[in-house]
This record gives sequence, structure tokens and C-alpha cells, in this order.
Amino acid sequence: MRVATQSDRLRVVLVATRNPLNLGAAARAMSNFGFARLRVVNPYPMAFRDARSAVGASKVLARAEEYSTVAEAVADCALVIGTTAVGRRVLQHPLRRLELGARLIRKQLASSRVALLFGSEKFGLSNEALSHCHWLLHVPTSAENISMNLGQAVAVCLYELVRDPKAQRQSEKQPLAAAGDLERFTAMLFDALYASGFLTRKPTTDAEERVRRLVRRLKLPARDVASWLGILRQIVWKLHTPAGKPR
Amino acid sequence: MRVATQSDRLRVVLVATRNPLNLGAAARAMSNFGFARLRVVNPYPMAFRDARSAVGASKVLARAEEYSTVAEAVADCALVIGTTAVGRRVLQHPLRRLELGARLIRKQLASSRVALLFGSEKFGLSNEALSHCHWLLHVPTSAENISMNLGQAVAVCLYELVRDPKAQRQSEKQPLAAAGDLERFTAMLFDALYASGFLTRKPTTDAEERVRRLVRRLKLPARDVASWLGILRQIVWKLHTPAGKPR
Repeated sequence: MRVATQSDRLRVVLVATRNPLNLGAAARAMSNFGFARLRVVNPYPMAFRDARSAVGASKVLARAEEYSTVAEAVADCALVIGTTAVGRRVLQHPLRRLELGARLIRKQLASSRVALLFGSEKFGLSNEALSHCHWLLHVPTSAENISMNLGQAVAVCLYELVRDPKAQRQSEKQPLAAAGDLERFTAMLFDALYASGFLTRKPTTDAEERVRRLVRRLKLPARDVASWLGILRQIVWKLHTPAGKPR
Repeated sequence: MRVATQSDRLRVVLVATRNPLNLGAAARAMSNFGFARLRVVNPYPMAFRDARSAVGASKVLARAEEYSTVAEAVADCALVIGTTAVGRRVLQHPLRRLELGARLIRKQLASSRVALLFGSEKFGLSNEALSHCHWLLHVPTSAENISMNLGQAVAVCLYELVRDPKAQRQSEKQPLAAAGDLERFTAMLFDALYASGFLTRKPTTDAEERVRRLVRRLKLPARDVASWLGILRQIVWKLHTPAGKPR
């Protein structure tokens, strides 16, 4: 969805929405994920008015187009998808999980408009609305609670449309300390271990190797080497300094 | 996330949440995606009380554990992740996009507990809260509007944790009509085309082939063959029946 025109071809269609907060939430998710074209079909009149006049109402909501039938709202779309929490009714349509469905929608958006329908909070999409759909989409929810909040369902569907599994595949890990730095750190740690009495005077190869392995497993970031050496240096200095009075 | 214990190892930690609706929405998304362990740190007292007593408040919310510091809320977790809308502050942490970050979280959940932190609606996570995090996670939002609604952010993050790209890879397409059925359909369509005058009496090979191709491009489902043949049969019959009076 890198190409602006692709996201511009999606129509998010909210059918018979009741709650102005949900209209606002759907519009906000659209804005978060770069979609601008909202259509509302038969919203509860107060809901639409309240949502539009809410403080911070978005540009998406201000530009929303209102229709009185699903047929009109999807007339210019080559593909019409209904969202559903499966389980409520016997489905006459092919039903696809979001992961696969979004892939098909993206493919279609490369060349033509797609309508993505969300039904009312209480009843979902009516059979009449569903009859305009080519197939249905469902978010893979847990069997114990399949019914999603409308604004959250819109957010999850749109996220799946823009997610990019290849993004950031290159490791973005912070550079680790070089072996030489680790060895300096190890040496100073030995000083501290002896000075503190953690290790006794006679060092064994075994003990030294154990400490060296400990340090390697830390994954010390290169940028933090100086700080850690400074801390150890101070500790070693203090350990070698006679205390004001014996404890 | 097929194994119940894996999702049971995630702790969703809401820090300084202000709005009871958002507490409820976060709990609902957790329930939708099969996560049960909610922790709240220093919520606005009324928000937590209101959310818990709301009609339809979920089991997740009823069982939420309350803490007064982030340190206590994450003490038993081997990996602590903060969520952030990047851009607000210079980040001292490695920052990962959700697609990659969720993969790392899933890996960790196989063996140990992970805390996923969400900050307050207004300010996000404080620097103090961030200092408990191993790395930060961000949802790939559009540069024009990076700030997500809290409940929607929780829903999107949890969805990414449970999404399964391999689900439903096997084609779930409906079986298409066999070639023999298509040919019967084509033959009856020709009847209708001649009877209606759409084609004239002398059929050309060219016209026949064009219609045959038209029919093949329909992708007629096997289950609908009988219905379509019935429709065509009726039309052909009616076309051959003399009208009560000439038009």
C-alpha cells in the first residue's frame, strides 16, 4: 500500500451505525492507516450529526459521503466485501479470514475500487446488505468472544491492509561492543571481583573463563562500553581506597 | 498462539489510563483475541472503578490486577515492551515495527512471561515507565496521524500476535461448474439469445465462440448450475410462448 492511489481506492462503508463514538473511532483508524474515503449508509441521524460536530472530528469524517442504500454506496466499486463475526447466521457467501482476505483486497485495489462494509454495532450487516457482497471477511477472534467493537474491527482490518511483513527485516539491533572492548571490560571486572573478595587471590583458569563467558552473554552495546568501564573503574578505585573507619 | 499457555503468558499493562471506555475497550480486545491477563498501573481511580462496574464489564476487567508502579507490574516478566507513537521524544530504546516486534514477542512467550505496556491517552508512557522496557514497539501508522486511540492500539497489537499467515492458505474457493454443465448452460443460453432476437437466425462460429468464452469467464459455481439452467429454461419457454396479445 505504498502507492497513495491504492489506499485512495478503498471505500470504508459503515452501515446503520448507531454510536457517534464508533463513527469517530472508525474515522480515526482510517486516518491512522492512510485511508480517506468514508461512506455512511443510513446512520442513526443523531449519531452522524454528533460525530461530525464532535471536538476534534477528523477531516475523514467531515468529508464522509452519506447514502441511503448499500446499493448506491457501493455502485462504483468492483469488489464489495462484508465484514462479519461468523456464527450468527448461516452464510451464503465464501468466508475468508482477514489474513487472506486482505491480500485479495490489496490485489484488487491495484486496479479498481473496493468497498469494505461494516454493519451496525448490534446486528452487524443485514441479509440485504450482505447480498451486495462478493464475499465476507472475518477477523480471527477467539471462539469465546467473537464480537468485536466496531472501531476496533475497523482498525484491525485497515492495519492488515497496510501491514508490511518485509518492513524492517534487516536487523535494526544496536551495534554490540567489539571483542577488544569486552576484554577491557572483563579485565576491569576481574579487578573488582578480586578487590571485593568475590574471587580469592589465586585465580583459576576455570574461574576466568566462567567470567569471560558471563560477559559475552551480556550483549553489551558498543555505545555503553565507556559508561560501564567508568562505573567499574570507580568501583575498583573505591575498593582500593581505605575506608574512613573499619566496618 | 495455538497453545493456550502462550497467550496466558502475556501481561497487557495499561499505565495511567484516564478513560473508563478505553479500559473497557482494551479488555474487550483482549477477550476477542484470547488474552486474559490485564494489569493496570495507577489508573485514574474513577476510570478503573467505572470501567469495572460498567454494564457488560468483562471477566478480563474483573480479574485485572492493580499496581501502583510499573516496576511491580512487570516484576515477573522476562521481556518488557513499551508501545509508542514515535515522534514525540528522542528514543533511547531500540524501536521495532509491530510486524517484526510481534514475532519476537511470540518467540519469547514460548518460554516466559512478556509485559506489553500502553501509556495514558494523553501522554503515552512516561520516561520512567519507558526505562523499564527492553525495547519499544510501534504500529506502522501514517505520518499524517500517528496517534492511535488506546483501545484500537491494543486491538491491533493483539491481533498481530494471534494472526496466522498460514491459516486458510488452502483454497477455500467454491467448486466451479464442470465443463459439461457449462456446455449445457451455453446451449440453453444460445436458445435464449436466438429466441429473444439477440442473435439472428444464422449463427456464425465466431458468435458461438464469443458466447462460449463469455460463459467460461463467469466462473459459475457448481452449486448454482441447476438454478441458472432453471432460469434460462423458463426464459426460453416464455420466449417461445405466444403472448396474449402482440406488443
